[in-house]
Amino acid sequence: MSATEDLIANNAGYVATFSKGSLPLPPAKKMAVLACMDARLDPAKALGLQEGDAHVIRNAGGVASDDALRSIIISQRLLGTEEIVLVHHTDCGMETFHDDQVKDKILAETGLRPSFALEAFPDAVADVKQTAARIKANPFVVHKNIRGFVYEVETGKLREVPLD
Amino acid sequence: MSATEDLIANNAGYVATFSKGSLPLPPAKKMAVLACMDARLDPAKALGLQEGDAHVIRNAGGVASDDALRSIIISQRLLGTEEIVLVHHTDCGMETFHDDQVKDKILAETGLRPSFALEAFPDAVADVKQTAARIKANPFVVHKNIRGFVYEVETGKLREVPLD
Repeated sequence: MSATEDLIANNAGYVATFSKGSLPLPPAKKMAVLACMDARLDPAKALGLQEGDAHVIRNAGGVASDDALRSIIISQRLLGTEEIVLVHHTDCGMETFHDDQVKDKILAETGLRPSFALEAFPDAVADVKQTAARIKANPFVVHKNIRGFVYEVETGKLREVPLD
Repeated sequence: MSATEDLIANNAGYVATFSKGSLPLPPAKKMAVLACMDARLDPAKALGLQEGDAHVIRNAGGVASDDALRSIIISQRLLGTEEIVLVHHTDCGMETFHDDQVKDKILAETGLRPSFALEAFPDAVADVKQTAARIKANPFVVHKNIRGFVYEVETGKLREVPLD
C-alpha cells in the first residue's frame, strides 16, 4: 500500500495551507458535474472549480448509471443544484472493449458471469448525447439544464457536444 | 446556464498552461479512489494526486454502489489498478435524511416512489467500514487492498478508519 502512504503524506501539506473550513454544504454554483473516472482528467482543475462550488460525480465512462442518477437526484432535491455538466473524454478506456468479451473473460476466471452492464461505448460524443437523454428521461430529476462536453486529454480542452 | 459559462471560460486558462498531453491511460499509482461527491472535498488536492495518478470514482456518500463496483472492476481488470482508497467525510449530507422520508416526499411530488435505495447512512466511520466490506464481498474485484478515511471538511485532514 505504498501509494496510499504517499497520499497520506501529501495530505499533511494540504492541511498546512487549508483555508476552506467554513463552507456551506450546498454547492455554491448550484451545479453537479458527471465525469469519467479517468486518471488524466482532473475536473476541478479543468473546469476551475474551487472547494464548495459543485458536486462531482464520477464513474467508468461518466455514464448516467442508476447510481449517477441517484447522486443527481440527491444533489438537486436535497442540496439545491440546478445545472448538470457532463464530461466524457478522448482516448477513453470504455471505447477499448466490448461488454460481452470482458464478461466472457470474467466468467472464465471466476466461474461467474456479471449480471450487470459494464457500459462500454464506441464513441464518446454519441455517448454524451445518450447520457443526457437518460437524465432527461428520468422522472425524479427536477432540473434538466444539461450541457455536455468531451475533454481532450491531449490538450486539456473541453469541446462542447450539441445536445438535442 | 451562467455557472457553466464560467467553467468554459475557466477551461481556457487551464488549456493555456496544460503540459500533461502524453500521459498513459492506466493510472500511474495503480490506484482507484472512491469518494463522496461533496463539493467541499477535492480529492486530487486533498490527496496530492496529479493528472494520470489514479482513477477517481465519486457518488453521493462515496458508497460502494453497484455502479462504483462496476467502476472498480473496470479499473482493476482493464486498467491495472491494485489499491483502493475510500473517502467519506464529516458533515455529510447523507447523514441528514432517511431514505423512507425522502422517498415519501418524492412520491407525493411525482406520483412515483423510487424503487432504488438513496443510501443515506447515519455515521460516516461506520459506513466506511461497511463500504470496505461490500468491496471485499464482491466476487469480481481482484485486489482487495483497501484503506478507508474520513475527510474533515473543517480542517482538510484525512482521518484513517481502521478496517477489519
